[in-house]
Amino acid sequence: MPVRVLFSAPASDWTLYEPHLARACAARGLDVVLSPDADDPAAVDYVVYSPKGGLEDFGAFTRLKAVLSLWAGVERIASNPTLRVPLARMVDAGLTEGMCDYVAGHVLRYHLGLDDHLARQDGVWRGDAVPPLARERTVAVLGQGALGRAAAETLAALGFRTIGWSRTPKPPHPRIDGRSADDGLAATLAEAEILVLLLPATPATENLLDADRLARLPRRACIVNPGRGTLIDDAALLAALDAGEVAHATLDVFREEPLPPDHPYWHHPRVTVTPHIAAETRPSTASEVVAENIARVEAGRPLLHEVDRALGY
Amino acid sequence: MPVRVLFSAPASDWTLYEPHLARACAARGLDVVLSPDADDPAAVDYVVYSPKGGLEDFGAFTRLKAVLSLWAGVERIASNPTLRVPLARMVDAGLTEGMCDYVAGHVLRYHLGLDDHLARQDGVWRGDAVPPLARERTVAVLGQGALGRAAAETLAALGFRTIGWSRTPKPPHPRIDGRSADDGLAATLAEAEILVLLLPATPATENLLDADRLARLPRRACIVNPGRGTLIDDAALLAALDAGEVAHATLDVFREEPLPPDHPYWHHPRVTVTPHIAAETRPSTASEVVAENIARVEAGRPLLHEVDRALGY
Repeated sequence: MPVRVLFSAPASDWTLYEPHLARACAARGLDVVLSPDADDPAAVDYVVYSPKGGLEDFGAFTRLKAVLSLWAGVERIASNPTLRVPLARMVDAGLTEGMCDYVAGHVLRYHLGLDDHLARQDGVWRGDAVPPLARERTVAVLGQGALGRAAAETLAALGFRTIGWSRTPKPPHPRIDGRSADDGLAATLAEAEILVLLLPATPATENLLDADRLARLPRRACIVNPGRGTLIDDAALLAALDAGEVAHATLDVFREEPLPPDHPYWHHPRVTVTPHIAAETRPSTASEVVAENIARVEAGRPLLHEVDRALGY
Repeated sequence: MPVRVLFSAPASDWTLYEPHLARACAARGLDVVLSPDADDPAAVDYVVYSPKGGLEDFGAFTRLKAVLSLWAGVERIASNPTLRVPLARMVDAGLTEGMCDYVAGHVLRYHLGLDDHLARQDGVWRGDAVPPLARERTVAVLGQGALGRAAAETLAALGFRTIGWSRTPKPPHPRIDGRSADDGLAATLAEAEILVLLLPATPATENLLDADRLARLPRRACIVNPGRGTLIDDAALLAALDAGEVAHATLDVFREEPLPPDHPYWHHPRVTVTPHIAAETRPSTASEVVAENIARVEAGRPLLHEVDRALGY
């Protein structure tokens, strides 16, 4: 009997994913029926899930074995009380690589003062504008999960003095200065000339970067947030930018997306908005992860990247 | 008898270098007299040399053992007929690191389309602007000397498909696609979505990037030149930019520096001028190289980074 897989995501995603998913399942010898429609929820074995697919109630999926998220961020589905089977988040090599590109690009942009160079095409030769070396610059990455650790490794490979903070201690890394817990966070913020936010959205990280913590940053620090919109107290950040205490922020994620056209972030001279592009799941590599997880459950093995529902990630 | 070292550079450099040079020589047990003035050229053993120091005639330096350049680019002094002793160019770790920072920053800027993001803070959420991954982007570095190889290694570590071209073949590198000679150059240009110029200024590289070679680049390629101003045929580049064949150029070096205020590069919408900041010699690390070379010659050992006067680098 074939394994029945519901692809619960926008129709445009189905077009992108269907050939990759079919190929990845076939490569593992899986006999699957892939469908974007749940005509009979009670017959579905697996749900491949995007929050944009509209599926909210898993009650009728009585045969369900697991839900396989296409997104790395699973805060909405993780708290869904109708979901009673294991949930896997997406850890996609393409997504991770894209995130590292984004973080490296914006950190180097701040490090080199690129915005100033772009703005100063005025015929005045300013020969005194040599930036420090990367190894003379401290960058901190808050969050040391798959994405945060990969981003910190990329920054360390570029030579930056790199701090990696996580709520709980992580395995040591030869080129990342690992910190954890609340006292580690305070010390990290005090040194972070450039701060990168790659924490999950959980109740514990909501408004993590509030007025008090912003005030701990070195004066004229820069912030890059490709993580989650809820990590930042928006009013506190705008106040710190207005006061010149924080020099600049590049924000890719927001509490409301698309970011409304009249939001002050769009119009603030010290903010760069990017439209949630830092980490995009890539169908080719993500389909391998989905197929691998179906194969694992069918073989009685544990899911890759299973979500701890209590933690929310 | 002490070794006499003339520091022939602007007075501001003397202030920066003197403590570092004194310390680096003392650390090697060298008995040196450092001076910014050549009261008696016939007593000078070594000249530490900047082109900005004004020294043009080495005829009176009858006791001279070597000239130690503070600059990586030695094209002017290499062709000085009055110089008849070995010449060393500067290969400074700090200079190399700063160059890698600059190249990585501007290549990622082009890769991510950062200029567009900075320009589009208009309230319009453009969700389709996901860039390719670094490994889907081909970057070529022309020149595989100390700086070019280090820059190519940095780009390869970031995941870019990296081609390293040099006039003569270089030792292979596991992550750099090495090419050489004229046919290798033609093939390299045809693939280079982003082209980085790190060749020395020699008669053979003058106007290397001329109209014919610019026309070989993929349409909408970007160019980063932190190497030498003479590498580019300026009129040909401006024509290619005007025609939209080359998308953008970031130029750090020019035939005339400071670049004159009325030069078209300053005012071209597809050109970013930076004021020769990509690679600055750092006094602390450069002084170690100078002291090491004095120690080597005093011990009868060959110079580090000795210039081949015929090649000019």
